[in-house]
Amino acid sequence: MSEDIGVAIIGVGCTKFGENLSVGYADMLAEAAFAAFEDAGVGQEEIDGAWLGTCLPGVGNYDGDAGSSLAEPLHLYSRPVTRVSNYCATGADALRHACLGVRSGDMRFALAVGVEKMRDVSSRDSAVHQTVYRGHPTIGKGISAAGFFALYAQRHFDAYGLTREHLARIAVKNHRNGARNPKAHFQREITEEQALSASPIAAPLGLFDACPTTDGAAAAIVTTPAVARHLGVEYVLVKGIALAVSGGYNVMFDPTRDFMSFPAVVDASRKAYEQAGVVDPIEDIDFAEVHDCFTIAEAIMCEDLGFVQRGKVKDAIDDGVFELEGPLPINPSGGLKASGHPIGATGLRMTYEAVMQLRGRAGEHQVPNARRGLIENLGGPGVVSAVAVLEASE
Amino acid sequence: MSEDIGVAIIGVGCTKFGENLSVGYADMLAEAAFAAFEDAGVGQEEIDGAWLGTCLPGVGNYDGDAGSSLAEPLHLYSRPVTRVSNYCATGADALRHACLGVRSGDMRFALAVGVEKMRDVSSRDSAVHQTVYRGHPTIGKGISAAGFFALYAQRHFDAYGLTREHLARIAVKNHRNGARNPKAHFQREITEEQALSASPIAAPLGLFDACPTTDGAAAAIVTTPAVARHLGVEYVLVKGIALAVSGGYNVMFDPTRDFMSFPAVVDASRKAYEQAGVVDPIEDIDFAEVHDCFTIAEAIMCEDLGFVQRGKVKDAIDDGVFELEGPLPINPSGGLKASGHPIGATGLRMTYEAVMQLRGRAGEHQVPNARRGLIENLGGPGVVSAVAVLEASE
Repeated sequence: MSEDIGVAIIGVGCTKFGENLSVGYADMLAEAAFAAFEDAGVGQEEIDGAWLGTCLPGVGNYDGDAGSSLAEPLHLYSRPVTRVSNYCATGADALRHACLGVRSGDMRFALAVGVEKMRDVSSRDSAVHQTVYRGHPTIGKGISAAGFFALYAQRHFDAYGLTREHLARIAVKNHRNGARNPKAHFQREITEEQALSASPIAAPLGLFDACPTTDGAAAAIVTTPAVARHLGVEYVLVKGIALAVSGGYNVMFDPTRDFMSFPAVVDASRKAYEQAGVVDPIEDIDFAEVHDCFTIAEAIMCEDLGFVQRGKVKDAIDDGVFELEGPLPINPSGGLKASGHPIGATGLRMTYEAVMQLRGRAGEHQVPNARRGLIENLGGPGVVSAVAVLEASE
Repeated sequence: MSEDIGVAIIGVGCTKFGENLSVGYADMLAEAAFAAFEDAGVGQEEIDGAWLGTCLPGVGNYDGDAGSSLAEPLHLYSRPVTRVSNYCATGADALRHACLGVRSGDMRFALAVGVEKMRDVSSRDSAVHQTVYRGHPTIGKGISAAGFFALYAQRHFDAYGLTREHLARIAVKNHRNGARNPKAHFQREITEEQALSASPIAAPLGLFDACPTTDGAAAAIVTTPAVARHLGVEYVLVKGIALAVSGGYNVMFDPTRDFMSFPAVVDASRKAYEQAGVVDPIEDIDFAEVHDCFTIAEAIMCEDLGFVQRGKVKDAIDDGVFELEGPLPINPSGGLKASGHPIGATGLRMTYEAVMQLRGRAGEHQVPNARRGLIENLGGPGVVSAVAVLEASE
């Protein structure tokens, strides 16, 4: 094995995802963080620095706009606490920053928490309404997230023969996995027929091709492998973690864009693979949590991450490669599709899932013999990607 | 000397601060960053990671809400670029993150850019209006920033005999310095009489006790001292840099708060002093850029940073200690008072100023024999503080 980056995850926590109307932003944040403290056997007084991942603090409240939104409920005082924001990749970026804190030598224990409260505002005050009102650079011109990913789907249909049925199978798989995950927003199975007959939202995508908006929080505590061993806790190694940006909102109007791949995912995964010593992702990765904000995103991601050859994802779907019982399970948690997508929390919910899988404690959605897992968190119009490779410690 | 943190600033850039109506967010960002690239002799293709400091992306536009707002105009692709946000301390926190990137071993060259566009919105769309509209936790209850700092002023008046005249002298000094700074928003001197007779904004503070809102951007490039020496550029050492949080917006309603000090400034400066080997700040620091969002903040900061004994700042003001020609010049740039305060840019504008001072290239506002300088960037209701100690390299 090559040199990895020398960071270990020693504790994770995650709230139930869903429409959490009876709890607030700080309640969810504290629940996830204190679960991580208990899991790690580390108290909040031992945390040397922390990062808060929240993408949309302006939706109906003012929580999450700065580091103090995390410091205050946890009393993380006299220490650095910063909010990071990178669209939907915000959660995994918070984890990357906690890793940087440990790697810098400045911190023994670093905390990353992702939180988003999205369900207790009226549609009048929703993020979409507000962004249109405020002159969002693409939504203001009529392009929505669904419309953008629909272009990706149509291009893949035309170029490679991917079909709506393949996408429906991704939705069915993720709902089946989510039905086994007590943290998931939607814990019920759906049929391929239900997916195919659902209301269209942006042709060729229908309602079951999209993830919901969700309330939730998730947290992780990192340290060095040496400290983790000394503590005697069940830790997971961060073998590689990288983030890449490939553009901004202008890519939506870029006439040269081919809508076939997410270059940021390719770039971030190649860097993370290099750090982790991953040579052949198909062989070297046992499962992955990827950013299925839309079913088509999961399909393209499998190609971008090197899990199948370009254009061959439809065959892998037909062969059941990515099913929970298949050779390379994708989104054993149910993914964003069933777990839900509280934006800043998603990357850390993936981290929670991967750590539980690698400890063999994922319950009914456990991947057999999970030794090495990958998480991929996508942001903006496919232009930001954070990828981490995690490995069981013994 | 003790061990420092092993980071060097090799390039800085800063736009003219002011009402920059003819240029946009990305224009200012690019101007500051390209000035830093030219100063460092490093191209954008050599930057391994970057941080964007913007506090209020929602004011009238959508720029600055994620790392891609920095990546896109500079084409910083296939690399990590993240937005950080920590109220008015956002700029210095972006610098701290660039330092973490270099210290982690992950990056040879890291870039920090702070930008804020505040002047081209109508008052209807201003930040204050929007935050009231959206239920800001304190402004929504009638407490403004000016009202909050006025409480600090009144307590200092009562406890230590500080007067409105002392605060006016701070405003006069900073305007005098700003009149010599071609980057400053306001480049004109004022008299003590003008300051004292200005409109009250929150008693005992008047208009000249407050900084303006401003458009502007500033940038810095960091690497290791070894790389800086190898490049042969005129670099400045980051001897220490720390951020501390001491609370959230709830401090405004905390009945135990004494309104005499900013604990975050005390905590952050002590950590930075320890890293930098600063034993006696009065002796060891030659000048400082501090966060005079209100004149009273500068006065209290001088005590919190250890530049004068507690309660003695009025004597130091009377004695001219902090004048440009005094023994410990404070805000040779003119501070926020005259330079202006584009929120996310301010900490990096301070960095720009300190680097120019330490190179002996500050022109008409040069501090004689400046060998070691401090920057302090305050955020929120005095609850976030970032402090750095910078030193000339030879």
